[in-house]
Amino acid sequence: MNITVIGGGTGTYTVLKGIKDIPNVNITAIVTSADSGGSTGVLRDEFGTLPVGDFRQCIVALAEDGASPQNEHLFRDLFEYRFSKGGTGLSGHNFGNLFITALTDILGSEELAFRKVSKILNIKGKVYPVTFEKIQLVAEYEDGSMLIGEKMIDEPPSVHDGTMRIKKLWVQPNAEVFAKSKESIMNSDLIVFGPGDLYSSIIANIVIDDFAGIISQSKAKIVFITNMMTKYSQTYDFKVSDFIEEVEKYLRKPVDYILVNSSPIPKDIIENYTVEKAIPVENDMKDDKRVIEADLISEILYEQKNNDVVKRSVLRHSSKKIADELQRILEKS
Amino acid sequence: MNITVIGGGTGTYTVLKGIKDIPNVNITAIVTSADSGGSTGVLRDEFGTLPVGDFRQCIVALAEDGASPQNEHLFRDLFEYRFSKGGTGLSGHNFGNLFITALTDILGSEELAFRKVSKILNIKGKVYPVTFEKIQLVAEYEDGSMLIGEKMIDEPPSVHDGTMRIKKLWVQPNAEVFAKSKESIMNSDLIVFGPGDLYSSIIANIVIDDFAGIISQSKAKIVFITNMMTKYSQTYDFKVSDFIEEVEKYLRKPVDYILVNSSPIPKDIIENYTVEKAIPVENDMKDDKRVIEADLISEILYEQKNNDVVKRSVLRHSSKKIADELQRILEKS
Repeated sequence: MNITVIGGGTGTYTVLKGIKDIPNVNITAIVTSADSGGSTGVLRDEFGTLPVGDFRQCIVALAEDGASPQNEHLFRDLFEYRFSKGGTGLSGHNFGNLFITALTDILGSEELAFRKVSKILNIKGKVYPVTFEKIQLVAEYEDGSMLIGEKMIDEPPSVHDGTMRIKKLWVQPNAEVFAKSKESIMNSDLIVFGPGDLYSSIIANIVIDDFAGIISQSKAKIVFITNMMTKYSQTYDFKVSDFIEEVEKYLRKPVDYILVNSSPIPKDIIENYTVEKAIPVENDMKDDKRVIEADLISEILYEQKNNDVVKRSVLRHSSKKIADELQRILEKS
Repeated sequence: MNITVIGGGTGTYTVLKGIKDIPNVNITAIVTSADSGGSTGVLRDEFGTLPVGDFRQCIVALAEDGASPQNEHLFRDLFEYRFSKGGTGLSGHNFGNLFITALTDILGSEELAFRKVSKILNIKGKVYPVTFEKIQLVAEYEDGSMLIGEKMIDEPPSVHDGTMRIKKLWVQPNAEVFAKSKESIMNSDLIVFGPGDLYSSIIANIVIDDFAGIISQSKAKIVFITNMMTKYSQTYDFKVSDFIEEVEKYLRKPVDYILVNSSPIPKDIIENYTVEKAIPVENDMKDDKRVIEADLISEILYEQKNNDVVKRSVLRHSSKKIADELQRILEKS
């Protein structure tokens, strides 16, 4: 069976990490090319290369341990490593991003660099950008205002009201879906969207010129994995139906399965999210036959950021639980 | 036969690159731990790690091509890659240095990182630092003034008169020779010093606490390869006898062979060096039986620095010609 996971960011990482262990599946990840924040954004600005952060995360998720006696999981560790010392200008840069940037410069092509890195990390599956063209996301809001750039849309300036909905998302300039990404969508049995930032990670892929057309030609079943929390600036006060309505609007076809967490979210976690103006996503589609409710919460409920002394409780999907549900869906298809 | 090459910098790189192809030799390179300039110096200051630049150059020199289908000479290329885009603070950093720095942080030890990197680049031989202790070079000059730090000694401030001789070189704090470096010296058939900056690359190794004592216990023949040009700030107006006198003073024993270039240096090259206040090293030891004169000049007589548009003619020893002479010496021993 062929699974294609489409997105970018932590959500896609989580899904890939889980489905890697499902026997007899061929995995492809397709990631957004519009990322403009963080270490990735700096490198993009300075080197004019494709944003590498989302690609790198997927590569790490699919890296095989103990690949060779020389590697073990060393390259995975390196690709997750972030320089944390200040003053040199290195601080904040992820080593994997630097690796891919140097390799792109040496090999003269992002496509060759991505292919080589996939080999070095001995990944199970393929990771492709949705397009190799250099694009920027553009969002138009309810009030007619516009923001340009993934980073800006994800973390809008304070003058922008993050409760406003995005009326329309597109990319500029026009770009074509990368041939191998297209091929992978066409040959898929299952296509998985989410979890992740609805506009900047999920729909950012769908708005590439011929993407919806390619989806319409694929016989694949489509699964949408809903976020557990809303997000100020993108999906403020969204319910499950809002997510589905938006994704179907851009896909121009209905999704086949909607995976929703049914497990109650611990109170202290919810409290932690109030500073981010985020609340649990309400499932208002319980009666829809496409909805599959299941406990999807990861048991590791904290993260420690680089150098942060305080461990912060965060809510994450469980790779294993998502993979179990997707395997069940695969068996049905 | 066991050869140990001791030094650091371009000269040691050149020797290693040549002797790599001599059949049936086991190569060890021992490099200075006191480097404090360039990308290496910045990383040393910021991360508190051992200077990695000299180690990296030796690793690259000994890297085997086509090591594995995954690698080819890719890692060698990466380890020679220098980020050249400005503004991010990355510019000027060598990728190999960053790789080793990240790896040291991940593995928690420089020794483990060096060992792992040696494996990844599939090197023919071993490269060890002379010591893993964090040391600084200190130089006292004829006028009693002192400079601290390899970078300072190599490129002294303008108030310092670079024609002055170094009366005494030492390191602080006291440091012990790394056990495997010691072992390699003890088991060597041939030990090669130079070419390279006499104080900051060659004697910088010899002044480590028990180094001369270890040399005195080794049965190895000692070869000194003399520089072709003098160097303002270290060996201004030095003749061959000055090099030998200095190195023997610190070694506390005579060297067995002195390899000297006999080929005339092209006039335009000599002219290029006048801005650096450097002149060809005169061979005033022609009658000494230990002296071996041979054509040692590389036929590639220019280099193009990163981003430099102008190719600059420089004088370099030939790896091949040095290796041929060393092979002859080995056969005699």
